[in-house]
Amino acid sequence: MEPLVVAGVRLGTARAGIKYPDRRDLVVLEVPAGTLAAATFTRNAFCAAPVTVARAHLAAASPRYLLINTGNANAGTGRQGLADAEASCRALAELTACRPDEVLPFSTGVIGEPLPLARLVAGLPTALAALRPDGWADAAHGIMTTDTRPKWAARRAAIGERVVTVTGIAKGAGMIRPDMATMLAFVATDAAVDETALRRILGDAVADSFNAITVDGDTSTNDACVLLATGRSGAAVPDAGAERERFAAMVREVCVELAQAIVRDGEGATKFITVSAEGGRDKAECRQVAYTIAHSPLVKTAFFASDPNWGRILAAVGRAGLADLNLERVAIYLDEVCIVREGGRAPDYTEERGQRVMRQSDIAIRVSLGRGEATARIWTTDLSFDYVRINAEYRT
Amino acid sequence: MEPLVVAGVRLGTARAGIKYPDRRDLVVLEVPAGTLAAATFTRNAFCAAPVTVARAHLAAASPRYLLINTGNANAGTGRQGLADAEASCRALAELTACRPDEVLPFSTGVIGEPLPLARLVAGLPTALAALRPDGWADAAHGIMTTDTRPKWAARRAAIGERVVTVTGIAKGAGMIRPDMATMLAFVATDAAVDETALRRILGDAVADSFNAITVDGDTSTNDACVLLATGRSGAAVPDAGAERERFAAMVREVCVELAQAIVRDGEGATKFITVSAEGGRDKAECRQVAYTIAHSPLVKTAFFASDPNWGRILAAVGRAGLADLNLERVAIYLDEVCIVREGGRAPDYTEERGQRVMRQSDIAIRVSLGRGEATARIWTTDLSFDYVRINAEYRT
Repeated sequence: MEPLVVAGVRLGTARAGIKYPDRRDLVVLEVPAGTLAAATFTRNAFCAAPVTVARAHLAAASPRYLLINTGNANAGTGRQGLADAEASCRALAELTACRPDEVLPFSTGVIGEPLPLARLVAGLPTALAALRPDGWADAAHGIMTTDTRPKWAARRAAIGERVVTVTGIAKGAGMIRPDMATMLAFVATDAAVDETALRRILGDAVADSFNAITVDGDTSTNDACVLLATGRSGAAVPDAGAERERFAAMVREVCVELAQAIVRDGEGATKFITVSAEGGRDKAECRQVAYTIAHSPLVKTAFFASDPNWGRILAAVGRAGLADLNLERVAIYLDEVCIVREGGRAPDYTEERGQRVMRQSDIAIRVSLGRGEATARIWTTDLSFDYVRINAEYRT
Repeated sequence: MEPLVVAGVRLGTARAGIKYPDRRDLVVLEVPAGTLAAATFTRNAFCAAPVTVARAHLAAASPRYLLINTGNANAGTGRQGLADAEASCRALAELTACRPDEVLPFSTGVIGEPLPLARLVAGLPTALAALRPDGWADAAHGIMTTDTRPKWAARRAAIGERVVTVTGIAKGAGMIRPDMATMLAFVATDAAVDETALRRILGDAVADSFNAITVDGDTSTNDACVLLATGRSGAAVPDAGAERERFAAMVREVCVELAQAIVRDGEGATKFITVSAEGGRDKAECRQVAYTIAHSPLVKTAFFASDPNWGRILAAVGRAGLADLNLERVAIYLDEVCIVREGGRAPDYTEERGQRVMRQSDIAIRVSLGRGEATARIWTTDLSFDYVRINAEYRT
């Protein structure tokens, strides 16, 4: 399915030769004046220069342009990196007669190399000339680095009398590779949403999507997710009620679909694994259990081998650091097959039943903690030879 | 160098056929009456049955025998596992006329299979008949599972007028493999040390050795480290002063040597990596930074590739979760080569200088945080194809 057009949004791309010749590596996304924006950024203390600049610009003005380049992360580049990110915004502002702080810069690619500013700026006129409402698919290609496929998602539904669209694109093929510094997602809607609501809706959606995936546990210096609301559909999202919920669900669904696409495109991934923890005292401890499983190299290699090695899952739950965990109440399931109950292997479990689940490419692990009502769910991949190959060979 | 005899300690082994025929898989370590002991055990909530039993026995009595089997971890075995561990102690107690709670049981091997108690018990007479003071090397072989080599270490020095010996053996070829559930270390001395001092000396030594290594971040259900003091050298370790420090240093050195041997024998390891963080506000945050680097699959694969990919180290430091980290004050070194300074690549750094360090098999990463006086140091390995192969193929 092609991505859906969002009223007011135009996208253009160019081949600026940032790192490789003849590769689409520059994307400009244009929104009309009056568009409201919310964004979340990496929590890595070493955030990249464009993240610092985008944060400052977003605080100062409503954006008119998003300027995205691949091939270079402009991270670990010190003060020169900040100056380069600012200069790229000024260049685009001059060409479009907007203010520099109405441009938000995003970079993804190798860390620690100076941004090739001249090549980037030279590519801007081509990207601007290419701006069109149905430029989403090209833009999804344009932000790819080691992704093996472009990622987009869209939802369309009525809000009041009007039809509202939410469309998003993302890149990332690992929760992170600091080199290819990593996860970017841009979502736009033509609904009118006030800024407070926009921020809350994005925050909730990101918590359930991009912040619920992991390939290798690393966090990029460049991660960013932006939600733009042009209002051009004429539909206003109310502050509360069913329509507000319906709109929030559209945004969440787009984000979840993009986040899952990143996991499915994970480096060397051969399995898509849903890890749920339920019956916890709070969401935090459920996430702790789920992430401990998802990050365990031993669990991940067992999934790669399609080995129902439940001892590794049990050991991961045991070391997740939950105080007073009563082992007698813990149960672990692979899809619907109970593998652990009352501190040991489930009496009715057979290796053959576990093996059947493990041979699937989509697998759910569910841990029941038996001590509360909270739940959490995250998505991850296995750890394969190809993960090591990709990350050992990259840059060499 | 052969391990040194410790006055009062005898060791015997047997081939009990616990998992494989004709493999040395049963070890008995005997100490004289009056021996004092200290021990540390896994913090995994799903601790194995022998860990629970050893803890209880140690609280009730001074040990006369350590009973160690490989091939089966007796973990994830529920109540039957506890009964089996107790039964193995009773069997040894009957044969030696001691009390069951004077026997400490330790198991390592596959999780979730019932302990083959009859075969274990049938092997005891052979192991007892084999008891001898110079049985350390055989015992080091006897506790191996996927280890590629036996691990022992020893120190000998004068305490007062007497010569004191500290000898230890360990097994482990990964910080953990819950399947081969994992790290065991047994250290004995013929010094006389009171129990409080023994516990403190062991605690300090373990913090700087076995608790400062990681291969894959997993923690076994069976980890245990025991320190035994027979007193048979006639030397008493005083409560304080230079001799107490000298003795504590001997124990620490034995533990560090054993811990480093485990890392060097790490699954698929091709590099031995020392990660230090200095200039932190406290030891905890220094350890946090060091472990975040040591557990990053991206850092580990870069080391496997001998790639001086400093962006990955920088990104790991950035996501370690230190509040108010001032990037301008952070510096990162590969051996003596400064790679990061003032938030970016060090001006005098060249790829060639980094490459020269990365090609070594022993490498030190040092992070200077520039915000305090605390330091921490840990040891780890790279992440190789063989790590994935060993853990994907194991059990299949």
